[in-house]
Amino acid sequence: MKIAIDAMGGDHAPESVVKGSLLALEAFEDLSITLYGDENKIKQYLEGSDKRLTIHHTTEKIENDDEPVRVVRKKKQASMVLMAEAVKNGEADACISAGNTGALMSAGLFKVGRIKGIDRPALSPTLPTIDGKGFLLLDVGANVEAKPNHLLQYAIMGSIYVERVRGIKNPTVGLLNVGTEDGKGNELVKEAFQLMKKGPINFIGNVEARDLLNGAADVVVTDGFSGNITLKSIEGTALSMFSMMKEVFMKNTKTKIAAAMVKNDLKGLKDQLDYSEYGGAGLFGLAKPVIKAHGSSNDRAVLNAIKQTYDLVEQDVVTLIAEQVESMREEAN
Amino acid sequence: MKIAIDAMGGDHAPESVVKGSLLALEAFEDLSITLYGDENKIKQYLEGSDKRLTIHHTTEKIENDDEPVRVVRKKKQASMVLMAEAVKNGEADACISAGNTGALMSAGLFKVGRIKGIDRPALSPTLPTIDGKGFLLLDVGANVEAKPNHLLQYAIMGSIYVERVRGIKNPTVGLLNVGTEDGKGNELVKEAFQLMKKGPINFIGNVEARDLLNGAADVVVTDGFSGNITLKSIEGTALSMFSMMKEVFMKNTKTKIAAAMVKNDLKGLKDQLDYSEYGGAGLFGLAKPVIKAHGSSNDRAVLNAIKQTYDLVEQDVVTLIAEQVESMREEAN
Repeated sequence: MKIAIDAMGGDHAPESVVKGSLLALEAFEDLSITLYGDENKIKQYLEGSDKRLTIHHTTEKIENDDEPVRVVRKKKQASMVLMAEAVKNGEADACISAGNTGALMSAGLFKVGRIKGIDRPALSPTLPTIDGKGFLLLDVGANVEAKPNHLLQYAIMGSIYVERVRGIKNPTVGLLNVGTEDGKGNELVKEAFQLMKKGPINFIGNVEARDLLNGAADVVVTDGFSGNITLKSIEGTALSMFSMMKEVFMKNTKTKIAAAMVKNDLKGLKDQLDYSEYGGAGLFGLAKPVIKAHGSSNDRAVLNAIKQTYDLVEQDVVTLIAEQVESMREEAN
Repeated sequence: MKIAIDAMGGDHAPESVVKGSLLALEAFEDLSITLYGDENKIKQYLEGSDKRLTIHHTTEKIENDDEPVRVVRKKKQASMVLMAEAVKNGEADACISAGNTGALMSAGLFKVGRIKGIDRPALSPTLPTIDGKGFLLLDVGANVEAKPNHLLQYAIMGSIYVERVRGIKNPTVGLLNVGTEDGKGNELVKEAFQLMKKGPINFIGNVEARDLLNGAADVVVTDGFSGNITLKSIEGTALSMFSMMKEVFMKNTKTKIAAAMVKNDLKGLKDQLDYSEYGGAGLFGLAKPVIKAHGSSNDRAVLNAIKQTYDLVEQDVVTLIAEQVESMREEAN
């Protein structure tokens, strides 16, 4: 299996990308990786050579504040763009970047393309739950507008991914809504609810944002605007609470002693909420696996994203989605 | 000033409602309260009599699972309905309930009515920020669909409230969006952005959900669907983290000792995130102040909701909103 990786994307690039890639090559014997980026910078973190690790040298790269759609057309030699082209040309089975999310979505759409029958790809991270199982939330912002049928497609893609890659049999699917009762919500979710009831998924109805971290459903479906806000509300609240806790613990000698006593246990809490443990966010609906690793990815987060991508390819999730969509189109005709 | 209160609404009713009312009567000499509800149950928590506290006896009440719109028409003698009618008839200047939110919105719309020129009332709680200042979020679900002009109206109503009642001069107004850059978002927020730029408010542009608890803006405007999900994501994450922290602290003898050492400081953290400190959620846009106190309100939360309602009446926020809306209508013509 060949995975193309943007070595220049993310806050700790290229170091964390290179180191994470080396860990992945140790973990999977049948894996080859091509790193796209500045050869001199990449080589700083390599000792010796590995024939399963190749470098595709380029000095151009996409910055976080580059305008997503235009930059993909303009910076033709950017590491992220070349990586996506490698997938398009069949030189790689999948690709990963921790860089500019919008640009990766554009590169995915323009270079890799969509699965036939899927209208919109969905950006799909796995978020933590208290019980450690995690849940897939999609879409978190690939498309800020959605139609009911898109939400059904998100549900189908998410279910196949969660079952195949995360190993959860017959995963439950919930529709994010303002209440759990049937008939709640705006026109979009009311119509999506009806479609999802009849869809080839284990639909359990509406779920509320309040219950997400308690594991309300294995797959939670929503439009990209609401999903983005949900993701960032959860992230922001968790970060704020950690910073408030830190302040409490640094208050005086007594609290500092207490902090030292529970340090390891609180670290466990932080790890539990660290969603890079579940890999990156898949751009489901594209014709090949394209994975967005978290911008702040460290070595371990990169390794997790590669593992996830490996499983996506191994389980042939893209083909399964394509077949499911095709069979629904046939039924509809 | 006369405030009508639904004594039977909320998880701890009527006890917390009665006790909170008694505290408020101590705090404000010119305040009279009428409690609507079961006289026998209310009297359990009263010692002696106070001519500023009257009881309007009724045994009918609205339950949390009653269907909001129908129940207001059906249960004509319900404590919440009679309370709203008192406001309509001019027997009270404002009203408060900790009961069924949807039913209170219906009672507000059908009985109290809207301010002329306001299309949709907005449910508007104040949420905590790390610095203790708090921010007003509206709408959190009075209307699951919104038009750009509604968002502008929310911004105007919120600004007047925050300036007059919360004492923040020239409050900043942010539009909840998927990114901070201009031009982000779906059609609704893009159009609302343009209207808000020209509105009589201190508009600072888009804000992200991630930055809300850091105090990104004093007033944060969004449609009721997104607002509801934002509110519940923040609540759910905070509750989940507290329950995870509790688990960490109960793990073994060492962690239990540490917990005892920081107990008071952590309680401070919990209090900081307790938004009943800021009062209840106003139903802004109605012709008289109607306040939704939190369902789990204790005595102190009821007191805070009454204080907030007192200030709303005292500052004549409804008239200020009506005048602002009227002057905009004149300008537009």
